[in-house]
Amino acid sequence: MSFADDQLTCDDFLGGRVRLYQPKHGYRAGVDPVLLAAAVPAVAGQRVLEFGCGSGPASLCLGARVEGLSLTGVELQAEYAELAEKNAAKNDTAFEVINADLRALPADIRNRQFDHVIMNPPYYDRSASSKALDDGRDTGRGGDTPLADWITIGAKRLAPKGYLTMIQRIDRLPESLAAAHQCLGSLVVRPIAARLNREPSLFILQARKNGRAAFRLSPPFIMHDGLEHSSDRDDYNNMATEILRFSGTLPVTI
Amino acid sequence: MSFADDQLTCDDFLGGRVRLYQPKHGYRAGVDPVLLAAAVPAVAGQRVLEFGCGSGPASLCLGARVEGLSLTGVELQAEYAELAEKNAAKNDTAFEVINADLRALPADIRNRQFDHVIMNPPYYDRSASSKALDDGRDTGRGGDTPLADWITIGAKRLAPKGYLTMIQRIDRLPESLAAAHQCLGSLVVRPIAARLNREPSLFILQARKNGRAAFRLSPPFIMHDGLEHSSDRDDYNNMATEILRFSGTLPVTI
Repeated sequence: MSFADDQLTCDDFLGGRVRLYQPKHGYRAGVDPVLLAAAVPAVAGQRVLEFGCGSGPASLCLGARVEGLSLTGVELQAEYAELAEKNAAKNDTAFEVINADLRALPADIRNRQFDHVIMNPPYYDRSASSKALDDGRDTGRGGDTPLADWITIGAKRLAPKGYLTMIQRIDRLPESLAAAHQCLGSLVVRPIAARLNREPSLFILQARKNGRAAFRLSPPFIMHDGLEHSSDRDDYNNMATEILRFSGTLPVTI
Repeated sequence: MSFADDQLTCDDFLGGRVRLYQPKHGYRAGVDPVLLAAAVPAVAGQRVLEFGCGSGPASLCLGARVEGLSLTGVELQAEYAELAEKNAAKNDTAFEVINADLRALPADIRNRQFDHVIMNPPYYDRSASSKALDDGRDTGRGGDTPLADWITIGAKRLAPKGYLTMIQRIDRLPESLAAAHQCLGSLVVRPIAARLNREPSLFILQARKNGRAAFRLSPPFIMHDGLEHSSDRDDYNNMATEILRFSGTLPVTI
């Protein structure tokens, strides 16, 4: 099954450097995969594997920021995997998309190692949430794969000293740290908050295969200046604008 | 074995509201147990159990801030347990001190429930650190009890809806959250940082028995204003001064 053209919109990311077809009704990317892509410390020549790539926003934004990467994405839902391939072609980016369940990766992937594994797993714990009306959006929002599996299986695919980088909703921090603490090291968390002195709603977790450094918690990355929303304008602060519009990087430590 | 009088100093806490004998050489309390005491949401009439109370700073500071508590402390090292009793008497505070290993609590404690369990466990992972020269300080700094045991055993002693409140070094956050996520709910973490935009060095973890609320990460509690240490004066900011000198509370959420 595929999305018909009239079921799609074409949306700008990174100030138009990346343009993506997305379903009108279904899972649509916000700023989160763009922040994820900005936090991946990849350099030219490295291999990147994304779990749950959807229509491709994180990998394609990363590819637009860092040239010369080898990009591979795994997506469970066939119509989203197909859309990711269409988006890769549209953006002239080499992006290998594999339609598979990350818990049953094809041997070709299981036999390969990657310098980076990146992921923006579904935010809602299926055991604690109700099912959305649209099946595609539902899988993108909740999914059936435990978060610990995403991290554990990702860690297995990393080359020695490779980095896992994940963005996730803040309420999943305990289970994320518990899983990463078991199979990776040198964990760093950077919370992402709308404003200074607000609770962060998201976090970026970065960890290294065979890492031995102590855990570090970075100060929150703040998206908006001021203490409240003061107008209808898009009021991202300079650092957030640099990331979202101009392919800037999001440092996980400061 | 006891400390001789000439092995002790007498030190002010909470601006002199609490005065504690502490060994000149050995484990000496800094601001950490005072911050812990400030974060405990106890009210008159409640029962509080402290694990690893040392010479008593956290429980005695809590008793000075909240009247009418029933305070019990467990301390592994006999000479520190004795010192805690001496300090309770000096401060006219009812404080039951039990000299025991928290992994082998006497039946009397195992048969009781508490509204609060509080702890400032040793900061260094024994498996990854070298032994300090002084045995008392060594146990206070490193200890042999895994951090997960402190939390798991503490959770068992809580009454329904009771609170566990812990202060710990930031690098132990992953294992702390992993343990608390298994046996408690409604976890909240408040990082404690010296200054704005610095990495926090400590955190307070609060969790509830039978809690069902989502995990929350609070903005860091900042101890000093300004971006760097500007003089030799004690330059705590107003909120930190309120807590350390005037028995103020440290809210774990804002």
